[in-house]
Amino acid sequence: MVRPAHGGNLSWAAGLVGCSPDAILDFSASINPLGTPRSAMDAIQAHLPLLRDYPDPNYQRVRSMLAQIHQLSPDWILPGNGSAELLTWACWDLAELAQTVLLTPAFGDYFRALKAFGAEIECCPVEQSEFQHSAGLLLNNPHNPTGKLFDRAWILEQLNRFELVVVDEAFMDFLPPDREQSLISEVQNYPNLVILRSLTKFYALPGLRFGYAIAHPDRIKTWQQRRDPWSVNTLAAAAAEAVLQDDEFQKQTFDWLNAARPQLFEGLNAIPGLSPLPGVANYYLVKSERSGSQLQKQLLEHDKILIRDCLSFPELGDRYFRVAVRLPSENQRLIDGLTSCLLNMIS
Amino acid sequence: MVRPAHGGNLSWAAGLVGCSPDAILDFSASINPLGTPRSAMDAIQAHLPLLRDYPDPNYQRVRSMLAQIHQLSPDWILPGNGSAELLTWACWDLAELAQTVLLTPAFGDYFRALKAFGAEIECCPVEQSEFQHSAGLLLNNPHNPTGKLFDRAWILEQLNRFELVVVDEAFMDFLPPDREQSLISEVQNYPNLVILRSLTKFYALPGLRFGYAIAHPDRIKTWQQRRDPWSVNTLAAAAAEAVLQDDEFQKQTFDWLNAARPQLFEGLNAIPGLSPLPGVANYYLVKSERSGSQLQKQLLEHDKILIRDCLSFPELGDRYFRVAVRLPSENQRLIDGLTSCLLNMIS
Repeated sequence: MVRPAHGGNLSWAAGLVGCSPDAILDFSASINPLGTPRSAMDAIQAHLPLLRDYPDPNYQRVRSMLAQIHQLSPDWILPGNGSAELLTWACWDLAELAQTVLLTPAFGDYFRALKAFGAEIECCPVEQSEFQHSAGLLLNNPHNPTGKLFDRAWILEQLNRFELVVVDEAFMDFLPPDREQSLISEVQNYPNLVILRSLTKFYALPGLRFGYAIAHPDRIKTWQQRRDPWSVNTLAAAAAEAVLQDDEFQKQTFDWLNAARPQLFEGLNAIPGLSPLPGVANYYLVKSERSGSQLQKQLLEHDKILIRDCLSFPELGDRYFRVAVRLPSENQRLIDGLTSCLLNMIS
Repeated sequence: MVRPAHGGNLSWAAGLVGCSPDAILDFSASINPLGTPRSAMDAIQAHLPLLRDYPDPNYQRVRSMLAQIHQLSPDWILPGNGSAELLTWACWDLAELAQTVLLTPAFGDYFRALKAFGAEIECCPVEQSEFQHSAGLLLNNPHNPTGKLFDRAWILEQLNRFELVVVDEAFMDFLPPDREQSLISEVQNYPNLVILRSLTKFYALPGLRFGYAIAHPDRIKTWQQRRDPWSVNTLAAAAAEAVLQDDEFQKQTFDWLNAARPQLFEGLNAIPGLSPLPGVANYYLVKSERSGSQLQKQLLEHDKILIRDCLSFPELGDRYFRVAVRLPSENQRLIDGLTSCLLNMIS
């Protein structure tokens, strides 16, 4: 089978080991390990009778709720079929510019969406802070896979230089309010800013597909005229409304993360031959003296643990892998598994 | 509120009358009135625990099942986020041709998708059978809103003349096997043919979003590279697998339709001032001596019945409306409501 270009491909991993996808402990996709909140499940159940109707093409209710949360008017917000759909439309806009700066290593789907519309891509290392060209800029904040956090002030500088800046904040909600660097509070000052957000990671809903874009109403209107009228399914819109009000789940997530993040970092750091990069998000990029893809294979076979190899990031290659932060006991299974795999590889 | 461009906009109708959307009897969207099958609901329930995983980007299981049903290999089939998503990609291909013939009156979303990619549109009346130009052709079969059925043989002639023919068969599954004119059995002979299918109407699932395209594997691959990897949500893929095997629901649907179609036609035809056009699908276009939009308003206010006005079809205008075939008792409510509204309008 072809090696997948994204994390979270459990069918692929299960096929390799010959087990059911459920049996795999997945560190390859950076999803909240508390699982889908009860509030989302309840909202889905309650909305099953509405499947026989078309969704409201304006998605008024969920837009209003997001608008209130972000202190914006609803016409600044566009719900999408996952933020991946909205990335497609953002990259169409970027493709109309002379070139787009992409910070690498970059999330693979950025290349897909930029190439779809024939964008001229200029790859720059993620450490670079000044750029010769200044047409389009596409970055995620926090950066994936490194976990680096860009300062709001630095992005504001870029907004004054670039014609269009697309900031994918898919993992920003994992940062506590006093550390986050979201650009949402600035969006009304910059018609050349697009922010992409996702409910997928924080609320463990990648199967349901819900993301949203925040941008100037003129841009939102253009995207709405391009895409089909019912892009977000009824259950996703309903679940979104429910989880956005689920303060308890948000609190539990931060309680878990505050303990589990340092535990995993220190555990990985203590393993000879591995160096996790300091990152702010719910995942770590790890430099390895041994082949990342071989480690992946051995962990799958011995422990049914799936990590994210970095072969699809040419700047990283086989000496890196990425792991999500999971529950403390699961993190410990990963640490133990990695330790024993590395011992076996040496002997 | 802005008059909606599509049927099935219950939020709009409910807002006008000041009631809940549930209270509206919806004849404006042509959805199977038996409602979402139990098998779909059960499949959704069973797959809720999988929402925390990404969907399989290859949608292997549902593609294989569709492939088997249509006696094709899975690489000829692409599931989509409703057929509306696939229409977007089909219209991108059409937009690359010199011009696209569109048979009018045409489903409004065809204009959206063609215009999104700057296609040159040439509108021809649906009665026209020969065309001067021969680049792209986009039609639905059965035709919406007229209910006209194009012969397979006639479309095959067009396939020999046009560079690309996109046939939207969203309502074809409402025709019994001995009457249907699907092009699926011919797709392997025509790399210039795209067929769009939907589960939305027959299985009453417009809120869930599932459609599929059938076309040459090279075209399918191109579309996959353009769109995002997880366009179909996990619950939609699971429900699709379930309903495609639901023979009992299919039988019930034909039992209902065989009785309800002639009942509604004859009922409408007996009302002075109304002339339903003969159509093969689960809806009728009706010519009216009175204003269709006024009839719509009165039916909403008096009977909480929503019909589809035809103001968004410039070729039809205010002397037409469209109604779905519903359950016999509901059809009777419509017939009674129309009769009394028309009497009131005369007096």
